[in-house]
Amino acid sequence: MERRILVINPNRDAACTAGIAAAVRPYDLPGRARFDTVGVAEGPAAIASWQDWYQAVPPLVALAEREPAEAYVVACVSDPGIEAVREATGRPVIGCFRAAVLGALARADRFGVIAFVEASKERQRRVLLSMGAEHGLAASEALNLGMAQLLDPEIPRAALLAAGRRLVEAGAGAVVLGCTGMAGHHAFLQEALDVPVIEPCAAGAVQALLAVA
Amino acid sequence: MERRILVINPNRDAACTAGIAAAVRPYDLPGRARFDTVGVAEGPAAIASWQDWYQAVPPLVALAEREPAEAYVVACVSDPGIEAVREATGRPVIGCFRAAVLGALARADRFGVIAFVEASKERQRRVLLSMGAEHGLAASEALNLGMAQLLDPEIPRAALLAAGRRLVEAGAGAVVLGCTGMAGHHAFLQEALDVPVIEPCAAGAVQALLAVA
Repeated sequence: MERRILVINPNRDAACTAGIAAAVRPYDLPGRARFDTVGVAEGPAAIASWQDWYQAVPPLVALAEREPAEAYVVACVSDPGIEAVREATGRPVIGCFRAAVLGALARADRFGVIAFVEASKERQRRVLLSMGAEHGLAASEALNLGMAQLLDPEIPRAALLAAGRRLVEAGAGAVVLGCTGMAGHHAFLQEALDVPVIEPCAAGAVQALLAVA
Repeated sequence: MERRILVINPNRDAACTAGIAAAVRPYDLPGRARFDTVGVAEGPAAIASWQDWYQAVPPLVALAEREPAEAYVVACVSDPGIEAVREATGRPVIGCFRAAVLGALARADRFGVIAFVEASKERQRRVLLSMGAEHGLAASEALNLGMAQLLDPEIPRAALLAAGRRLVEAGAGAVVLGCTGMAGHHAFLQEALDVPVIEPCAAGAVQALLAVA
């Protein structure tokens, strides 16, 4: 039986959703598991502020409740509402930030995070504290670009590379891309840095495969 | 390009190697990544004692050095020689115990481990300490069966189920199968317990996919 894994972008940015779909599609296991990626029409434009983070959750939970799937991946790198989606569905629910950190820890003892905005750092720190993984964070660097700039194929690359290099200098043995909007830059950054670069949608995808396949 | 991921059973038990191959095969991504599973002919019959654990490493490293692959999975649930294989190959090297713990933490805050023998517990605790994940261990239960008994399709099931239930009672939100020889019992135990049961070969396989695909 081919199991449906629903990947939910909690923001309403269609280009961001398309980038997430492209990042998880390579992990389809034909005949066994298939990724469907959707955005939340009622979600925020991006999850930048704490208000965005909280407001994203009710429509995210509602979407998970009405869309049947064998597992869910919440494709935002501050893991909004994971506990609420778990409560609502009873199915495996994977948070992309958590999965990305776990993917980094499979490869290195210490990791760095390239955060979307300054406020993302504190949200990510709280996830790390809840996982007991905060000690592994070598450093965090915020890009502070808008979603449209981040999704541009060229604009953010110099800043991403500079941030990645600072994280490696700070002791990171792996670098986590801290926003799903960075998915399209993964190959570029992996090529440019000499440590593993973890793309959270892909990291969430493989944990979902482990949960269902 | 289809990337070769080499899964190495550091022990010489052919039936154990066959079980590992069956556990990782479902994660082949046709055209992108393919798992090859091999045993180490010069390895111990099983990795039970500390002497086994240390003696397994030189032939394991030698095999990784002579067998080209895009990534390596060390398929023993006490992660022998991970650091040495990393040093020798420069390619991604995934330890199955580490990967299984990370798979458990993707699903729950606390986990339990069904260990192969008593001595496995201390080896696994050292891996957890090195990962900073020891706080997540709710409990560990050793089966203390021989490899041949463990690989039997029926003999170990009552003991596995009893151990799994004790771990859940102790607060484990996920259960890690602490020996690759338990792979054939994963579906049985996942069906019988009401928490995620993590099979380490599969957990290692998905981390290898994340590293190369």
